[in-house]
Amino acid sequence: MNERILEIDHLGIKRFFNLDTAAYQDAALDGKTKELLGLVASTVLRCNDCIDYHLIQCINLGWSDAELYDALNVALLVGGSIVIPHLRHAVDTIDQLRTEQGSNQT
Amino acid sequence: MNERILEIDHLGIKRFFNLDTAAYQDAALDGKTKELLGLVASTVLRCNDCIDYHLIQCINLGWSDAELYDALNVALLVGGSIVIPHLRHAVDTIDQLRTEQGSNQT
Amino acid sequence: MNERILEIDHLGIKRFFNLDTAAYQDAALDGKTKELLGLVASTVLRCNDCIDYHLIQCINLGWSDAELYDALNVALLVGGSIVIPHLRHAVDTIDQLRTEQGSNQT
Amino acid sequence: MNERILEIDHLGIKRFFNLDTAAYQDAALDGKTKELLGLVASTVLRCNDCIDYHLIQCINLGWSDAELYDALNVALLVGGSIVIPHLRHAVDTIDQLRTEQGSNQT
Amino acid sequence: MNERILEIDHLGIKRFFNLDTAAYQDAALDGKTKELLGLVASTVLRCNDCIDYHLIQCINLGWSDAELYDALNVALLVGGSIVIPHLRHAVDTIDQLRTEQGSNQT
Amino acid sequence: MNERILEIDHLGIKRFFNLDTAAYQDAALDGKTKELLGLVASTVLRCNDCIDYHLIQCINLGWSDAELYDALNVALLVGGSIVIPHLRHAVDTIDQLRTEQGSNQT
Repeated sequence: MNERILEIDHLGIKRFFNLDTAAYQDAALDGKTKELLGLVASTVLRCNDCIDYHLIQCINLGWSDAELYDALNVALLVGGSIVIPHLRHAVDTIDQLRTEQGSNQT
Repeated sequence: MNERILEIDHLGIKRFFNLDTAAYQDAALDGKTKELLGLVASTVLRCNDCIDYHLIQCINLGWSDAELYDALNVALLVGGSIVIPHLRHAVDTIDQLRTEQGSNQT
Repeated sequence: MNERILEIDHLGIKRFFNLDTAAYQDAALDGKTKELLGLVASTVLRCNDCIDYHLIQCINLGWSDAELYDALNVALLVGGSIVIPHLRHAVDTIDQLRTEQGSNQT
Repeated sequence: MNERILEIDHLGIKRFFNLDTAAYQDAALDGKTKELLGLVASTVLRCNDCIDYHLIQCINLGWSDAELYDALNVALLVGGSIVIPHLRHAVDTIDQLRTEQGSNQT
Repeated sequence: MNERILEIDHLGIKRFFNLDTAAYQDAALDGKTKELLGLVASTVLRCNDCIDYHLIQCINLGWSDAELYDALNVALLVGGSIVIPHLRHAVDTIDQLRTEQGSNQT
Repeated sequence: MNERILEIDHLGIKRFFNLDTAAYQDAALDGKTKELLGLVASTVLRCNDCIDYHLIQCINLGWSDAELYDALNVALLVGGSIVIPHLRHAVDTIDQLRTEQGSNQT
């Protein structure tokens, strides 16, 4: 669906998407750290699509399951029990991504 | 006021406070990274007191201003312009903490 | 399901539903403008069902796709990237409603 | 999926789950009242999974449909029309739980 | 300031205020229970003015400090550490209200 | 403080500020309508600084008090009673801006 959004050709929306991509590039902080920040922000704001997007990046960039769980624990403490369904979703997505990788790094 | 909260002596609240402290200790992720996660979570959830708390920890643990700004930029993109007043607050707090340190690390 | 809610016959809930309907009637502002306000409010609060409801009204009342996209861009800026999945949903709903109309006004 | 979460064996997450369970036990307030508090908190924060969880507890502990609707009305007033889709969900869940009970207590 | 709001004489706003008052009257649930629901909803949504308003009602209607703390603990678990500054505010307000009462019921 | 934020010279943050300004310019929708959208979005997200910013623009662009109240009523219905303190703040700001204008347009 992102293709469809770019197709509607709204200048502001396209520039927002570019800015969003740029925010996770290596800069003062490396991209790997910033994807973890994106994951925690998405979790406390309770957006499963955003969680999945950042988990894909996080796993590609080399975070281990234990590190991801530790980040999700921070999100759980900050955001409270209302975050639990999204924690479940995140653990499920990590499992699927690891299965796709054909490897389980705990 | 945290003293007053502990004084009311509610077991659940005291255990929550302990768990909250524990979440930022070195574990799979180091405490320095987790304080940055706490900062971004607090910023997208728009809580100035929480931002200040995590900024104090972040600066004590050695994050530079440039790194903190880069983390806050992730929070701004994820959370949108509604975050701007809290970004202003965060920059102001960083300035004050650096003045107290008697040093400016940009 | 709104029928089922009215069936439970709670006076407060029924009065809330009436008040909600009344809020979008022509008054100091016309209903067309207020449905656009409802759309943007629903988007920054990230409720797909509410987005769909207001999009149906917005399209019935004559807003063009370009105008709707421009309103959604405001919601994107205010609410940040966490809004993107709902922006995708909104564009998809607009497409479906236009197909049902048998006309595409870009 | 809670089993899977416990299986990942993160100490902080496990302790959070224990603390969460403990919060709804009889204490200064009885568990029945606290499950109703959990229901309203879940409704204004707009989490269907959490609403369902607390509705199961609320019905097991003896709240009637009329009492649950009255609590949901408070949530609707506090949280606004954005809560309506979750109110619909809650009424639907109550209906299902009563059907499973083989009894309708209005 | 509520006087000023009523003075602007917007029919929808006035009806909303009436509906809001009605939501906390004795009905299927008694007003005392519903004020506690309002307190927890206000706490997880992190609104100090709303917390203060409901605390005044809760104390007038006879909830003890221990019961209020137990309700606030539910809010803390559901809403997470981001709620802590509002928990502090609530405990401070309870202390002030008890001082005004000239009595401390713990 | 916006000057201080621009001074920190983070490219992403500066580009976000530019994009934010651009979102309220005349385009498919005129700027006047978009400032009203910004006002309602800020009100349901409960940010007083953002409400004040958009009210200044809204009044400069010619919205009357009655129109602003009608927009705020939509925000109140969508966002619920938790919005009331911000509605009070908005009415107070409108009063101050009108006094500064030396004219009262109801």
